[in-house]
Amino acid sequence: MIKKTYKFSTASVDYYFEGQLSQLGKIVDKTHTVIITDENIFKAHGNKLKNWNTIVLKAGEEFKIQPTVDTIVEQLIELGADRKSTLVGIGGGVITDLTGYVASVYMRGIKFGFVPTTVLALVDASIGGKNGIDVGVYKNMVGIIRQPSFLLHDLSLLSSLPQSEWENGFAEIIKHACIKDAVMFKELEAHTLADYQKKKSLMTALIKRNALIKTKVVQADEFESGDRKLLNYGHTLGHAIENMYELSHGQAISIGMTYACHISEQLTGFKQTEKVVNLLSKYGLPTYAEFDKKKAFDILQKDKKKVKTEMSYVLLNKIGQGVVKNIPLTQLKNIIESL
Amino acid sequence: MIKKTYKFSTASVDYYFEGQLSQLGKIVDKTHTVIITDENIFKAHGNKLKNWNTIVLKAGEEFKIQPTVDTIVEQLIELGADRKSTLVGIGGGVITDLTGYVASVYMRGIKFGFVPTTVLALVDASIGGKNGIDVGVYKNMVGIIRQPSFLLHDLSLLSSLPQSEWENGFAEIIKHACIKDAVMFKELEAHTLADYQKKKSLMTALIKRNALIKTKVVQADEFESGDRKLLNYGHTLGHAIENMYELSHGQAISIGMTYACHISEQLTGFKQTEKVVNLLSKYGLPTYAEFDKKKAFDILQKDKKKVKTEMSYVLLNKIGQGVVKNIPLTQLKNIIESL
Repeated sequence: MIKKTYKFSTASVDYYFEGQLSQLGKIVDKTHTVIITDENIFKAHGNKLKNWNTIVLKAGEEFKIQPTVDTIVEQLIELGADRKSTLVGIGGGVITDLTGYVASVYMRGIKFGFVPTTVLALVDASIGGKNGIDVGVYKNMVGIIRQPSFLLHDLSLLSSLPQSEWENGFAEIIKHACIKDAVMFKELEAHTLADYQKKKSLMTALIKRNALIKTKVVQADEFESGDRKLLNYGHTLGHAIENMYELSHGQAISIGMTYACHISEQLTGFKQTEKVVNLLSKYGLPTYAEFDKKKAFDILQKDKKKVKTEMSYVLLNKIGQGVVKNIPLTQLKNIIESL
Repeated sequence: MIKKTYKFSTASVDYYFEGQLSQLGKIVDKTHTVIITDENIFKAHGNKLKNWNTIVLKAGEEFKIQPTVDTIVEQLIELGADRKSTLVGIGGGVITDLTGYVASVYMRGIKFGFVPTTVLALVDASIGGKNGIDVGVYKNMVGIIRQPSFLLHDLSLLSSLPQSEWENGFAEIIKHACIKDAVMFKELEAHTLADYQKKKSLMTALIKRNALIKTKVVQADEFESGDRKLLNYGHTLGHAIENMYELSHGQAISIGMTYACHISEQLTGFKQTEKVVNLLSKYGLPTYAEFDKKKAFDILQKDKKKVKTEMSYVLLNKIGQGVVKNIPLTQLKNIIESL
């Protein structure tokens, strides 16, 4: 277990790389900790959670909603959780989002930490303090930005991860490559998903590299006034179609990235769409898709990234260099309809 | 309208003293503002809110709950509120708490301001950034500390305030006198509630004095690690019995202050219980009450102010000087049962 501390503008976060879930007791005091996890994780790894106060939720994005928050709050009261308690979310992005959000509002805010158990949570959802829930078809409409106290990485937990969840996670890894890291883009082109699944050292290095890409971006712009917006690459159209068609997050943003390449062609002169599409396909992700463009635009208009009459949209200048453009809604509507 | 800016550790807040609701358009941009108010206020002062986007809620503490938050979020989405929108809560403590809480989590946080319309909201609820909702019998169990951008005082709005709400507000004023301001305690002894209701200049000065007492305490300790706890005088037992017996907040904390005087006699040698009880009675507030001590203690144990096995309890050394004591729960149980 290697401990490194990263400072954000509001708090410091301890990252424990190459650790094990069984070492959790070294980080938090068992008697004043409540673990939040889901049925899948509890089934696969529950033996490591004996004698911990644990709240087990149903698994799935469809439970990242207010009624689940209400249930957790009730259980925390029941368990006698107080201002000195720590919540630990063990799971994927749904669990980390819910745990961070509940911890931020329970008794006006208590401590929390994460043990991410999916590739997506390891490289993205657990990092940066954005926590929240969906409201109807609108993703992450309610939430808060607040940093966890710690992150504990235990890659052995990936043993129970279904193939589709590996692909999901690689969508965010490819996103990082597109907006920030042309060298990693080449590395991904040179390997396959199976390589990363087989070779532990390769995967460990990839996870750490991606966790640090995201960490650096957030450190520089915690409240998303500038560079942090780049992390939304593929997410604007992606979020709009994700709940419309019950896509996985990775599938949705993969389609979102594909179309963002095409919008980039029109607005920044981007010329590498084919390379991006090929890499997404290579990692099992969908790229082009039939979708109801009118409905998608309607949902997209309610996106948090809309400000007054413009949408802040992430495009690519070239692979490894994302850029944020404010596109007037009227223009964006035409572009989307012409896709 | 007199503008003064007060700095807190996380933000600055503009206070507009001696203003008018009709001047709201000078503070916020009408097109990007949503007003949140209740039916009583809308009935009495709705004519001043023409052409403003307005969400009108049912009035009452029983609606300071999550389902109301859900409704507001849905309406904000419907109204197209985005990250540049401002929410303005016009009402008493329930409205300011709900508005501040929703604004803190909608799209991960947008701006908000308050126009307090009750004595209690003017001197207490609108100040200091504590916003939140009740969960079952537990008061303010879920919430956040985040400062409003502005406060606008318009004392003419008190014209529609029922007598019981005046008494409610004076409970918090007497609290301020007990913990921080012996001179004001004497002023209150020398006057009656009717004096303050009749004489505008007297009331204006009292409101300002109290707003500044609270502001100073919060400025010194925004996240309640020290002196801010004093503001909980009367609130520990008060909160426990408030929802048990459907008391108004002022009635509940008045009873809470009375018993806190008696606990002070035992633990700090406080000798002025009679003076406090007399002043509370003079302003129409209840003092001694029959209540289920066992049940009250059970609820009180879940209070946010409990940390591990101790309760942080506010006592008085003398009038004008509050003090925080950590009382072991076992001892507190005995004291409460002996009251």
